[in-house]
Amino acid sequence: MSLILTFLGKDGTGRTKVAIAAAKKLALQGKKVLLATQDTSPAFGLLLGVTLSPDPQELSPNLYGVQFQTSLLLERSWEEVKILEAQYLRMPLIKEVYGQELGVLPGMDSALALNAIREYDKSGKYDAIVYDGIGDQNTLRMFGMPEVLSWYLRRFQNIFSNSDLGRTLLPFLQPIASAVLNINLTPDKLSQTNKATNLLEEGRKAIADPNRVAAYLVTTGDPSSIATAKYLWGSAQQVGLTVGGVILNQAILPDWVAGELGEDLGQVYEKFDRDAITNTVTSEFAPLQISSIPHLVGEDWQALINAMPDFSQMATVPRPMEVDLATRQVKLFLPSFDKKQVKLTQNGPEVTLEAGDQRHNIELPPQLSGQSVKGAKFQNNYLILSF
Amino acid sequence: MSLILTFLGKDGTGRTKVAIAAAKKLALQGKKVLLATQDTSPAFGLLLGVTLSPDPQELSPNLYGVQFQTSLLLERSWEEVKILEAQYLRMPLIKEVYGQELGVLPGMDSALALNAIREYDKSGKYDAIVYDGIGDQNTLRMFGMPEVLSWYLRRFQNIFSNSDLGRTLLPFLQPIASAVLNINLTPDKLSQTNKATNLLEEGRKAIADPNRVAAYLVTTGDPSSIATAKYLWGSAQQVGLTVGGVILNQAILPDWVAGELGEDLGQVYEKFDRDAITNTVTSEFAPLQISSIPHLVGEDWQALINAMPDFSQMATVPRPMEVDLATRQVKLFLPSFDKKQVKLTQNGPEVTLEAGDQRHNIELPPQLSGQSVKGAKFQNNYLILSF
Repeated sequence: MSLILTFLGKDGTGRTKVAIAAAKKLALQGKKVLLATQDTSPAFGLLLGVTLSPDPQELSPNLYGVQFQTSLLLERSWEEVKILEAQYLRMPLIKEVYGQELGVLPGMDSALALNAIREYDKSGKYDAIVYDGIGDQNTLRMFGMPEVLSWYLRRFQNIFSNSDLGRTLLPFLQPIASAVLNINLTPDKLSQTNKATNLLEEGRKAIADPNRVAAYLVTTGDPSSIATAKYLWGSAQQVGLTVGGVILNQAILPDWVAGELGEDLGQVYEKFDRDAITNTVTSEFAPLQISSIPHLVGEDWQALINAMPDFSQMATVPRPMEVDLATRQVKLFLPSFDKKQVKLTQNGPEVTLEAGDQRHNIELPPQLSGQSVKGAKFQNNYLILSF
Repeated sequence: MSLILTFLGKDGTGRTKVAIAAAKKLALQGKKVLLATQDTSPAFGLLLGVTLSPDPQELSPNLYGVQFQTSLLLERSWEEVKILEAQYLRMPLIKEVYGQELGVLPGMDSALALNAIREYDKSGKYDAIVYDGIGDQNTLRMFGMPEVLSWYLRRFQNIFSNSDLGRTLLPFLQPIASAVLNINLTPDKLSQTNKATNLLEEGRKAIADPNRVAAYLVTTGDPSSIATAKYLWGSAQQVGLTVGGVILNQAILPDWVAGELGEDLGQVYEKFDRDAITNTVTSEFAPLQISSIPHLVGEDWQALINAMPDFSQMATVPRPMEVDLATRQVKLFLPSFDKKQVKLTQNGPEVTLEAGDQRHNIELPPQLSGQSVKGAKFQNNYLILSF
């Protein structure tokens, strides 16, 4: 099992640079690290000084790099689907469709990247996987996928099997199954869907465990970056992702500009009260730890590496959800949102919380499941629901 | 019909700022403009000075703003699906599932945004729609969707109807249809799939028409931004999107830093030969027009607006694909890629071109369709295929 780390922050705050420094730090600590990027543009390679390929390659002792290429991941998944089809279908259909033909549709990037991360995790080869995504919304959707997808499965299986439609279609399913599949539908064959459910369940558990998957926020002193990082802090809770800390990029200037300015850099930096910036960020993100990083000068990563937080310290950060059965309360950690930005609905069998353009269907413990929310209030960054 | 504009460039180069300035410019020219952002974080509102809502609101004369919220778009689409279901199904199934419950899966952001753009376009209310996406990969996947999806439909319908499986399932389809639908399957009812095909076909045509949909590249003087913009230039061709020009952000410093420095800004700018940067960018992106923009000082957008290109001049830019039937050649414009970065396959009935993590199934005119590629060479940024 690997520790999976990712970084969230406004575009241009240095997320990718931070991901590289984090991977280098963990590798220097002796951990086997996979640095995985989903950026296929040349930018990542220029920053790292190496062009990555779609399979892991060793970059330095303990550090491996991989560039996810969705078209190739799709091709490989397609071959696996074909093998499954040949196993289960009497008349294979898709064998005539080649993986190299398949175009990439929206959503495939995230779905295939998450699957690739899962497989690298399962391989047991890496102590840590550092994931550099293609934007915060994508990263959150990706990590939210196991939970959202398992909700869809749960809800629609339930509705289908209890519906007139399900009962009407049932007599047709057996003949179709025996015509298409080699054999009759048996509980054993049907358990293929359970395999999918198990995969999703494993994914949800991993993402909910801060010692398995964690995100760090990245911000500069720019008020707009700080506001975005706060918004992402709240949004991450909605997909069950623990935020472990904040990395404050104190590079006032872009690295290429700092490089050109050389000795004149000091004059610019003089104008900025970096302690004041640190204080602002510290108070905005309490109780999270703040790690300040300098700009990157040339290829000298050491200063950045030294400034990285200790990624194994996740014990004290707030968890997305806490349940107190004695008081019949569910506490949802939702920093950066206020009551007006949050929508609570209970139309179906579950309670749905909408915030930050993420919908979170709250799975309640059996004692509270199916019961009505009696009250909801905001207190110290928590939304407290009473049942 | 609206002119649809979007902006591609490395994170942090100022894409969003450019989108706002472009929308303001078009509105000042008397066009009715919809500025649509998919960024739900507070950053867009801070830049614009207004918090947008999920429905268009007037920001200034002729300028309307809208913030796409995927969860809300999903809810509204779901209601439409329910109405369709009630029309066509004897035993509606999903009526028990509420739009407010539905979580957002990867890909829904892009699919629903494209649909929203299509509807605003069709409404006839706007002369121009300026779309600020959530990252280049997403924007390209979104605009590539009609073409890729229509390929999947074409390929799989074809395979299914010619397959043993299709023939085996056919006897079951009629009884299922009459059990589930109110009426028998008639060609008229089946034309529902044609409706989908027509929508996709309309989308493809619009995206391929540079007077309907166009992208502009945004870069700073940072070599990494220039390399990314070049990569995006090539990648956009792969989804059939015309690139109309380059916007060179000559703001050496982030806007918030420039604001703090005030009069000392000149000293920093002195160190940079901005003419040299312009020359580099001009030669890298020939034959595209380069428009240089300054940094944004406070709320003074006028200098940026003045520096925007003339978005109606799309006549001379290279088109993604040209066919010469006389010489039996297909010319694909693929700037920034070389032969090693491009993969050409012809496994299925179509020629597939892979570059920039985009797969493009090339639809050939009838005279060349189904024939083998006899030769392929790179010449002046074009990949030339001979049949």
